[in-house]
Amino acid sequence: MKKTLLIVCDGLGDRLVDGLTPLEAAETPNMDSMAKEGVCGLMDTVLMGVRPGSDTAHLSLFGYDPFKYYTGRGPFEAAGVGLDLRQGDVAFRCNFASIKDGKIIDRRAGRQEEGLDELTREINNIKIEGAELIYKKAAGHRAVLVLRGAGLSPKVSDTDPEGEKVEYNQSKALDGSREARKTAELLNDFTDKVVELLAEHDVNKKRADSNKLPANIVLARGAGMKASIPSFKQKYALSAACISATTLINGVAREVGMDLIEVDGATGHVDSDVGAKATAAIKALESYDFVFLHLKGTDEASHDGNFKSKKEMIERIDREVIGPILREIKDATIALTADHSTPVGIKQHSADPVPIAILGDVRTDDVERFTERDCARGGLNRIRGLYLLNILLDISNRIKLFGA
Amino acid sequence: MKKTLLIVCDGLGDRLVDGLTPLEAAETPNMDSMAKEGVCGLMDTVLMGVRPGSDTAHLSLFGYDPFKYYTGRGPFEAAGVGLDLRQGDVAFRCNFASIKDGKIIDRRAGRQEEGLDELTREINNIKIEGAELIYKKAAGHRAVLVLRGAGLSPKVSDTDPEGEKVEYNQSKALDGSREARKTAELLNDFTDKVVELLAEHDVNKKRADSNKLPANIVLARGAGMKASIPSFKQKYALSAACISATTLINGVAREVGMDLIEVDGATGHVDSDVGAKATAAIKALESYDFVFLHLKGTDEASHDGNFKSKKEMIERIDREVIGPILREIKDATIALTADHSTPVGIKQHSADPVPIAILGDVRTDDVERFTERDCARGGLNRIRGLYLLNILLDISNRIKLFGA
Repeated sequence: MKKTLLIVCDGLGDRLVDGLTPLEAAETPNMDSMAKEGVCGLMDTVLMGVRPGSDTAHLSLFGYDPFKYYTGRGPFEAAGVGLDLRQGDVAFRCNFASIKDGKIIDRRAGRQEEGLDELTREINNIKIEGAELIYKKAAGHRAVLVLRGAGLSPKVSDTDPEGEKVEYNQSKALDGSREARKTAELLNDFTDKVVELLAEHDVNKKRADSNKLPANIVLARGAGMKASIPSFKQKYALSAACISATTLINGVAREVGMDLIEVDGATGHVDSDVGAKATAAIKALESYDFVFLHLKGTDEASHDGNFKSKKEMIERIDREVIGPILREIKDATIALTADHSTPVGIKQHSADPVPIAILGDVRTDDVERFTERDCARGGLNRIRGLYLLNILLDISNRIKLFGA
Repeated sequence: MKKTLLIVCDGLGDRLVDGLTPLEAAETPNMDSMAKEGVCGLMDTVLMGVRPGSDTAHLSLFGYDPFKYYTGRGPFEAAGVGLDLRQGDVAFRCNFASIKDGKIIDRRAGRQEEGLDELTREINNIKIEGAELIYKKAAGHRAVLVLRGAGLSPKVSDTDPEGEKVEYNQSKALDGSREARKTAELLNDFTDKVVELLAEHDVNKKRADSNKLPANIVLARGAGMKASIPSFKQKYALSAACISATTLINGVAREVGMDLIEVDGATGHVDSDVGAKATAAIKALESYDFVFLHLKGTDEASHDGNFKSKKEMIERIDREVIGPILREIKDATIALTADHSTPVGIKQHSADPVPIAILGDVRTDDVERFTERDCARGGLNRIRGLYLLNILLDISNRIKLFGA
């Protein structure tokens, strides 16, 4: 039995720009040595032709079918900020935002945190009829809202229009159910009361005095209900840890029962201290059977449409993460892949399959570089993300026989 | 967002005859340039090892799981002749045929149409107890029968034995259900009454006078029930058109809600004016988001076991269809593939995967020719037909994110 390390570079996969993907353009001697000494392939993290979100992709990569377990990002955001949801809770990802004359002027309240802790405390004192509410601030302008009570449903639309210079939305039931209608009404009631509470609030007067945009509304999206998910330990009988600086990913990992390891200097951005994360992963592998290491910067550069920044982030991961890991970890199964493609040309997630390389007790192939097109000729052919963890644990000789 | 053109050459895939498939033997410079400049692969249109019918294959290629939505070809034949079925209707593909002394002497009544319109009118006056009947003539000796009423089932066997010099069959329930027993009885009652009506009919006397075989029975097969299929527009949020000269394919396209475009000179045979179909497809792409172009001649040549005719049909499609399309359409996602293999050596559909090439914002590969064996080394690896449309629409940047 061996230990297993899964390294995911968020949004790593790409399409051709002037004939090359960022991964092809980057100098990646360490990733390439994984390709050379391991077995490679392509992977559809959710399903061929499905554009994965980061949450659905990671559920799938951890072996949980998102078509079964996913109702929305809310519960994973809640888990990511340390809220323990109960069965029946409906959770939303929220933003503090700024409105003027009923229209959104900034979806992130200028990204300024001044007074948001105080507003959070007061929002928690709001009473809405028919459910308990829990509101927790996350990093920056972000927050999570949980509605707790009987007869709720995640089938409701967002109040966040995800645009500016428009009015915020009234939440609506997405199906005809009484539960959805009730939940939408509760969310609209909550929103109205927040707007009323914050309109003339002292915090916003102070923000105005220092030329900051007001935090005078909370926009909610991604309603989801806590799923009844078998824990990672139940499912795989091993101890597992997650190293990520992204709330949503930590939330998914926490929901399936992984331990979360925090790393100083890990920011989830292109400036993150990825070397410190690699060091933490190497150390974690001493005490855990399975370690998941998530690196977000590649996705951030992709959403910015910045080829050069993505290429440089890849090169830094190669040098500061993959290099040390290959030097330090000698007898484990190590996989390198992505949760989805985020082509810089379209600045959004796509369904293009991602490259994968697995190092360990594997049947090697002729692939010499870790790129999308080289891995397409690899010995794994094209696999589905939902099966990845079992494939890795099998290479580590850790899964049970099915049958006799 | 780009537009999407899907070109299907019916029964294109094949096996080796003297070391080459018809596609390998054909000169196909335009198809080959799609392979060179695009990404290639193999595709199982329904599922590995499943021999697809044209109907099940096209359902799958349009993204509708035939294991869920297909009960028989009847409803699609009905849709193909413009009948609007209702939930609960059971439809059959029918032939006018000739019997003598109870045995079938010609399954197609000599393919002679004389008087069939008159017989169709009279057949519609037949009364059977327990259901309404609708009978509509299609091209040549073909027709569609619909049974409409409560408590019917498509789980009944054919009256058409699909052979000659044998008696026609009594329809039987294929499961123990009361609905299936009732439907089989209705079909047998219908058949008896048709035989009685047509036996001494004036039309058949006239046909005998001009040395034509009698149309003195209707043989039914392919019982199916209208499925509750979400429309193409609901499913993909785009406008779609189908260009095909084949009733069954038009029926599948119409059932999922595509517009049908008729083309003068398109026959569905090897003599079809495929160039006119290409012109129609190029034009349709100006006003539709998605255009499906179906070419039948390759399958006809295959069922005849005619290697040379199949090779020539392929070369004509390359010259008259793919050439103009590549010259005229500059900024769309274009896919070229087949609905199934029909090896000339066996003259019937097989489960051999089909080649596919996709041109557009794709990761290219080293494939230089559009053939079964070249495409097997392509960058797509091996995909499933059910996911094709999502894959194409993702390349066109037209599908929704699953998750956040």
